[in-house]
Amino acid sequence: MVKVAILGFGVVGSGVAEVLTGNGAGISKKADDLIELKYILDVRDIPDSPFAGCFVKDFAVIEADPEINVVVETIGGVGAALDFTERALKAGKSVVSSNKELVATHGRRLLELAAQNNAVYLFEASVGGGIPILRPLSECMAANDILEICGILNGTANYIFTRMVQDGIPFEQALKGAQANGYAEQNPAADVEGMDTCRKLCILSSIAFGWHLLPEQVPTTGITKITLADEAYAAASGRRIKLLGRAIAREDGSVCPYVEPHFVSLQDPLGGVEDVFNAIKVKGDAVGDVMFYGRGAGKLPTASAVVADVIAAARQLTRAGYHPWQENRPEKVLPADQLESAWYVRLAEGTLSTGEKLTIAGGEPGESGWITQPMTRGQLDALLADRKVLSVIRVLD
Amino acid sequence: MVKVAILGFGVVGSGVAEVLTGNGAGISKKADDLIELKYILDVRDIPDSPFAGCFVKDFAVIEADPEINVVVETIGGVGAALDFTERALKAGKSVVSSNKELVATHGRRLLELAAQNNAVYLFEASVGGGIPILRPLSECMAANDILEICGILNGTANYIFTRMVQDGIPFEQALKGAQANGYAEQNPAADVEGMDTCRKLCILSSIAFGWHLLPEQVPTTGITKITLADEAYAAASGRRIKLLGRAIAREDGSVCPYVEPHFVSLQDPLGGVEDVFNAIKVKGDAVGDVMFYGRGAGKLPTASAVVADVIAAARQLTRAGYHPWQENRPEKVLPADQLESAWYVRLAEGTLSTGEKLTIAGGEPGESGWITQPMTRGQLDALLADRKVLSVIRVLD
Repeated sequence: MVKVAILGFGVVGSGVAEVLTGNGAGISKKADDLIELKYILDVRDIPDSPFAGCFVKDFAVIEADPEINVVVETIGGVGAALDFTERALKAGKSVVSSNKELVATHGRRLLELAAQNNAVYLFEASVGGGIPILRPLSECMAANDILEICGILNGTANYIFTRMVQDGIPFEQALKGAQANGYAEQNPAADVEGMDTCRKLCILSSIAFGWHLLPEQVPTTGITKITLADEAYAAASGRRIKLLGRAIAREDGSVCPYVEPHFVSLQDPLGGVEDVFNAIKVKGDAVGDVMFYGRGAGKLPTASAVVADVIAAARQLTRAGYHPWQENRPEKVLPADQLESAWYVRLAEGTLSTGEKLTIAGGEPGESGWITQPMTRGQLDALLADRKVLSVIRVLD
Repeated sequence: MVKVAILGFGVVGSGVAEVLTGNGAGISKKADDLIELKYILDVRDIPDSPFAGCFVKDFAVIEADPEINVVVETIGGVGAALDFTERALKAGKSVVSSNKELVATHGRRLLELAAQNNAVYLFEASVGGGIPILRPLSECMAANDILEICGILNGTANYIFTRMVQDGIPFEQALKGAQANGYAEQNPAADVEGMDTCRKLCILSSIAFGWHLLPEQVPTTGITKITLADEAYAAASGRRIKLLGRAIAREDGSVCPYVEPHFVSLQDPLGGVEDVFNAIKVKGDAVGDVMFYGRGAGKLPTASAVVADVIAAARQLTRAGYHPWQENRPEKVLPADQLESAWYVRLAEGTLSTGEKLTIAGGEPGESGWITQPMTRGQLDALLADRKVLSVIRVLD
């Protein structure tokens, strides 16, 4: 019997409690014979909870209890979450986390700390919510050199794009709608400015390439400047706008990571991903392109991934955890502005000498949309010098 | 150091040798430190092979060699493959297989035999080629009750549909094209009559539901009767025709498995899957719909999945193998003709009293296409009694 403590009783933590105990309607009881929920750490009093007998307010109780084998960290952030994770691992307890900021920032050190203490640190839920992606990438694709990661990793941003296109409403209004129905936080910066996508890309890349990619090494552009006119030009070219996290392995061994909105063809499986869904495309040298698709967030999907890791830790299927990743290699990081792409350009006036011209109904007088030839951002900036540019978005090749 | 024997040096077996040894261009050497290829069993003499020193013709050499820890079975069929798999497992060697017929027919017994001999039997490559699906289903979705499996599991059939639609050529011609470029066997029965899809569905269902679903319990309809007119009506309704393997869990604990062509909406992620690609949608009670997508066949993609299992066996990450599945439960199998669906119906003359009428250009005089209300196959047959019916295809809900 494995005994579990959950740190934090927010959306994810309460979902984990439900899935672990079968208290949620229709949720599997597969874990029941194996796993018992003993503690929930939360600063609040929650007397009406069906788990009322489990609540504690002092992490030292959990830390000192030799019966606790697995600690689930759903606090978020890099404050208390980091402190408690370190203390749990040092006490020889395995830790399962949904905390992408913590993993992206300190994952390498925490994986090492786990190994030193004969424990595991698992975080399937930190990327793609309930979509199985880290374990398949780590284990099922182990025979491949990974050539590229390319993913729609933030459901909020994707939902906003879908509402803009399907309802014809501008960014700010789509964001308000997303906030109204709970798909976006009241402070939406991490979602719409790309930082959430950046953190998930770092976790995927660290597993794929074997060394810790850090968030500050990933140039990150969000979606706040995307207009309905941009969406109309995308449609006119048979494409949709998607916020992508990409990391491309180069022949020289370097990796080019970045987060940016892209024009994506509707022929590409990523182009058809709508609403809050996530999709992660991984290219391996043997397997080619594979894609993983599903809801990237939400209480029960995320809890599903957390509990799978708890079961894995409990069954000791993963004594070595994910394939280890090494220290950060700054010399391996290629700046995204050196990556050639075609570009979507919207000009207030005039024309471009090369590229494909796009036409939409109802544009401003004199304006035009273009898809350029492949070039670097520097070359594009030179081409656009002295032009009045309304929008620039990278086109996914 | 783990030493490996490959049984059969066909397309998959030679791919496994390349990926294992890094002899293929650009293939990862991740496995090199851990794994050594010692034997290849084949009846032929292949003196020019870079692996010439490995060939043996007598399985008893492999069986008797205590250095061999892992046997890779890529022979296919249920003759020698079954005999050698049993003997290898009884000798305490783990077996990795790409042989869907053997797993679908004898998987339960072979998993049990492996457990009895402290070995593992792994077969990620038997479904979806290189797409990670069995391990994610078995491990990452372990906290879910699986509600439905729905997949495009045969790349040949899907390629034929894509050619029919995109090139406007009938089935027979599309099949000949698939054979000419190596996507279909000279005897294409297993692909176009649905048996290949059926076997893969049995493997997925056995892992998902925990008891062995047998191929003879799965009503199976192939694609040989699909016409260009059917494709035109599908397009007129915003859909595509796809050959699906489906297994639907019912509230009473039964499962409804079947293989049939379906009308699939282009809004469904399965609807946009073209060419030789496979996609498997799995619905869990906690995670909702997740989908796995990629090339479902091919030398290196399949070898990629085989070698991942070899690495897993070598690392003993999976001492218990996949979650075990129990004996077949015939009382759990619901006949597909009791499953309600909307139906596409093409009539040579006359009209239907209910349903949506479809219009295409260039149909035969008097004919018409329809999408019916949801009903069972029996109800549909009653509705169509005495009518001259040209086509009936289930519509995916």
